[in-house]
Amino acid sequence: MHSNGPRLRADLPTPALLLDLHAFEDNIAVMAGHLKARNKAFRPHGKTHKCPEVAKALLRAGAIGCCAARLSEAEVFAASGIPGLLITTAVISKGKIARAVALAASAPDTMFVVDDRQNVRDLNEAAAANANREPLNLLVDLNFGRTGITPGQPAVELAQLIDSLPNVTFRGLQSYDGAAAHTTPFDARAARTAMTMGKAVETKQLLERAGLACPLVTGGSTGTYRFDSDNPGITELQPGSFVFMDMEYGTIGGPDGNEYRDFQNSLTVVTTVVSRSPGMAIVDGGYKAFSTDRPFTPRAVGIDGVVFHWAGDEHGRLDVTNASRDVRLGDRIEFLPPHIDPTVNLYDSIYVLRGDRVEDIWPIAARGKSQ
Amino acid sequence: MHSNGPRLRADLPTPALLLDLHAFEDNIAVMAGHLKARNKAFRPHGKTHKCPEVAKALLRAGAIGCCAARLSEAEVFAASGIPGLLITTAVISKGKIARAVALAASAPDTMFVVDDRQNVRDLNEAAAANANREPLNLLVDLNFGRTGITPGQPAVELAQLIDSLPNVTFRGLQSYDGAAAHTTPFDARAARTAMTMGKAVETKQLLERAGLACPLVTGGSTGTYRFDSDNPGITELQPGSFVFMDMEYGTIGGPDGNEYRDFQNSLTVVTTVVSRSPGMAIVDGGYKAFSTDRPFTPRAVGIDGVVFHWAGDEHGRLDVTNASRDVRLGDRIEFLPPHIDPTVNLYDSIYVLRGDRVEDIWPIAARGKSQ
Repeated sequence: MHSNGPRLRADLPTPALLLDLHAFEDNIAVMAGHLKARNKAFRPHGKTHKCPEVAKALLRAGAIGCCAARLSEAEVFAASGIPGLLITTAVISKGKIARAVALAASAPDTMFVVDDRQNVRDLNEAAAANANREPLNLLVDLNFGRTGITPGQPAVELAQLIDSLPNVTFRGLQSYDGAAAHTTPFDARAARTAMTMGKAVETKQLLERAGLACPLVTGGSTGTYRFDSDNPGITELQPGSFVFMDMEYGTIGGPDGNEYRDFQNSLTVVTTVVSRSPGMAIVDGGYKAFSTDRPFTPRAVGIDGVVFHWAGDEHGRLDVTNASRDVRLGDRIEFLPPHIDPTVNLYDSIYVLRGDRVEDIWPIAARGKSQ
Repeated sequence: MHSNGPRLRADLPTPALLLDLHAFEDNIAVMAGHLKARNKAFRPHGKTHKCPEVAKALLRAGAIGCCAARLSEAEVFAASGIPGLLITTAVISKGKIARAVALAASAPDTMFVVDDRQNVRDLNEAAAANANREPLNLLVDLNFGRTGITPGQPAVELAQLIDSLPNVTFRGLQSYDGAAAHTTPFDARAARTAMTMGKAVETKQLLERAGLACPLVTGGSTGTYRFDSDNPGITELQPGSFVFMDMEYGTIGGPDGNEYRDFQNSLTVVTTVVSRSPGMAIVDGGYKAFSTDRPFTPRAVGIDGVVFHWAGDEHGRLDVTNASRDVRLGDRIEFLPPHIDPTVNLYDSIYVLRGDRVEDIWPIAARGKSQ
């Protein structure tokens, strides 16, 4: 970190992302320990953090690699020396396919997903130019409402096409059901992921009956990891949000019907009160400081009775009529973000705190890398 | 621009921001011409674009400077040589005040806003350290629902405090009414801004009666510029969104009761179809490609009958059942963003197009600079 930067929580310029290192380390230990005990591989999703330092902390805890939502995100991780990359969205278009081949040449264990026959042929053709002549590693992406191909026979046929071509290799299935991650309550979530993951496991069995090995079935999320890790057909999990958590993930429900408490909130946004009038405090965080895709607003921590209302691109309006303490101009107030991934994507760096001391500043090197 | 980058619209990696240079130049000519004809100064707001190249284009058209929402944004503009900076939110906290003084030392025409007596005293004290010994230029920010001090006597007393201190100079009033900008329809908008700007002009008259010159009254927006520029008490306007426009500004209503058409939509987000299933196309733009703070979703351009639904951080789901043409895997679809400022803040650069040719790539150098 910059030796002349602020060293204390109270001195950081706001709005800023603050990481509680203790909670973060606990979250990683819980997830890594759970998966290790169940003999599942752990390839956490980098789209949450976009930060090579977080990916490295996960590798130190036993992760075998890092997922990336997009090629450009994976390129940043690769440049930081992160191994075992899996790009979880299909790589489409000539320009990106050429870049994918270049990435695989320098990081041969990189995996890509496919859901379309022509895309498989395009990748195979481009991979002929791969400098190290190793085939591209492909997973067949299964569709549970967004991207992917229909599980069962259509997926088997796509795998057979891959198997028939010289410059691509079939490695397995990606089974990601985004809706399962947020299904509430706990039991309904268990049922939903059992249903969708069941289709992936059936597809794996179909493949094996057709004589095609399917060594890898990857999927799962912060919301479903307990269930998926007990599913013998799943080989690896790719949860992301557990490192930081957010308000939304708190609401999906734990086994006791209360808040989901498997992981702690480790990331907050700190703001400053920049204007004060009766009953109201304006903070310096608005649409550019928090993502707004959830139907609730940021929750203040360390002070009760404060209600946040959006007040434009750069401001939040706090109703402080019932605040548990005085709120004065210049006060710093921290908030839990409603949704973590797109909030992190607004910032250039994470301030890493041990208590009130800034231990490090981690660049969010893949911020904005959605291409 | 990078000589080896893509030269054509169809080759740009998606999602990406595309600027139609012709529409952009027209928008600037319309606003600059309108204000020049009414003898109003033009200090457009940089929070929309955060891009020094856009600020320079506005200066070439006659702008006298550039507003910045925050100190860190202004620091980026100053580093690019943009003169006449006005930071439209109060600078609070010791660390930022020291930076403000440093900025004013290198760019002495920079102006700051205040709404609090202690903040004025803090600025005065810090400004004693200003290397060039010139006082800080301060505007009193008037409150119309967010930041600022109550217009009338409270504002006068704050101006008198500034006038009594050696290291700060009272330059005038900032009168920004964010709600007026989006008041619908046209006539209601005219009435609202006449009311709030009227309070600013009354405050100016009170100041002059108290013997304090008030050379500057700044405010106004893309939605209210027609009315504010006819108000003899207003000296300068600070609109921002007109350079690009967006879906929301289209809906505020023109004088004929139809869409607001004073300016053209010049900025789009281009996406690629990355997965295709019956009736549905998945594009590679979601919460990280568009801001989501408006109650509607991006609108496709160049194709009719397509409905965009949010599908997570990285994806949009298009209902293409009634699309006016075939939508295939790999197709590129452009969208108007619902809200321009926080959408621009998601990207590192703007691809500048003349027709289908990439003429330039402009860094959004102040992206993420919300501190």
